[in-house]
Amino acid sequence: MITEFDTSLPSIRQLQNLIKQATPVEIKLLTGDKLTGRVIWQDQNCICMVDENNQQTTVWKQAIAYTK
Amino acid sequence: MITEFDTSLPSIRQLQNLIKQATPVEIKLLTGDKLTGRVIWQDQNCICMVDENNQQTTVWKQAIAYTK
Amino acid sequence: MITEFDTSLPSIRQLQNLIKQATPVEIKLLTGDKLTGRVIWQDQNCICMVDENNQQTTVWKQAIAYTK
Amino acid sequence: MITEFDTSLPSIRQLQNLIKQATPVEIKLLTGDKLTGRVIWQDQNCICMVDENNQQTTVWKQAIAYTK
Amino acid sequence: MITEFDTSLPSIRQLQNLIKQATPVEIKLLTGDKLTGRVIWQDQNCICMVDENNQQTTVWKQAIAYTK
Amino acid sequence: MITEFDTSLPSIRQLQNLIKQATPVEIKLLTGDKLTGRVIWQDQNCICMVDENNQQTTVWKQAIAYTK
Repeated sequence: MITEFDTSLPSIRQLQNLIKQATPVEIKLLTGDKLTGRVIWQDQNCICMVDENNQQTTVWKQAIAYTK
Repeated sequence: MITEFDTSLPSIRQLQNLIKQATPVEIKLLTGDKLTGRVIWQDQNCICMVDENNQQTTVWKQAIAYTK
Repeated sequence: MITEFDTSLPSIRQLQNLIKQATPVEIKLLTGDKLTGRVIWQDQNCICMVDENNQQTTVWKQAIAYTK
Repeated sequence: MITEFDTSLPSIRQLQNLIKQATPVEIKLLTGDKLTGRVIWQDQNCICMVDENNQQTTVWKQAIAYTK
Repeated sequence: MITEFDTSLPSIRQLQNLIKQATPVEIKLLTGDKLTGRVIWQDQNCICMVDENNQQTTVWKQAIAYTK
Repeated sequence: MITEFDTSLPSIRQLQNLIKQATPVEIKLLTGDKLTGRVIWQDQNCICMVDENNQQTTVWKQAIAYTK
């Protein structure tokens, strides 16, 4: 599943700002999982998060329902 | 998952009108979640909503079942 | 998820006829939801239905399992 | 979700043969539904089936798990 | 859902080898179904399997979680 | 579902490093399955893993929720 990775898009810019400001975020997945942490990078396929225990999780964008 | 983001399409125009008129909307997701609020922006990947507590939720279009 | 929106396709023509003849239809979604009503418009992304209480629902084609 | 609709493909030819020979088929969907009947047409988006009560069901290919 | 059907890809070559060597394989689907048997052909859309009772099942690649 | 297979992408490079360093990884699937093991190869469609019993599993990227 290819997402549009055009940095002028609000959805991409929103994630870039979350990365810059290291804002905590909650990501709900299609599996029902809720992951919380800070986003450290994103690309066409994935978003990489770090939780409070410094554990990295690479979330595949295809599985995202919403972010808060 | 790329949606068609052609603003002449009824589905895109409908969301644009919801944004302009700040109409409350209900979005049912493939996870079973039902989100209610006002749509504040949309792009190829996402729809951003604000609920009555001013909490922002960025919904990924790939996860939408229907909107009411 | 882009569907093929070529009006020569039987699947697209079938929906056009349902719209013209205002035939009641049942749509089963990947969420398990069953929606019934009349289809009033369709495009690459969505199908808009009206139920017997005149409530509009915009169904995202990506979430459709089958129509009857 | 666009499927490859190249009639030289075994998967497309298999469905064409099922249509020509009116062979009964079982289709399992991602919803868990199992539909049985004869395939009467197919295109990029859908497969149309008729069951033993002559009820037509248009199955969206995106929702198919397997056919038997 | 179009998969990459480039026969130089390890994933496509792996299936070609399973076909040539008639190796028994287990396929887990997004529905939770587990199908076992020998793969007899594959294309962009599907993988066709035969089980020990010679029953053919055409699995849609879009529904595959993993193969063992 | 085609993923972007550009080796300059962080998500693809991350998997290449996991392969090179034979780092144990956990992959959560949309089915709810959690697979653990070492990644031995990846391509546009799949990731191949080997578990501690040397059992190979070819995971289809379309079914991945996240990797840890």
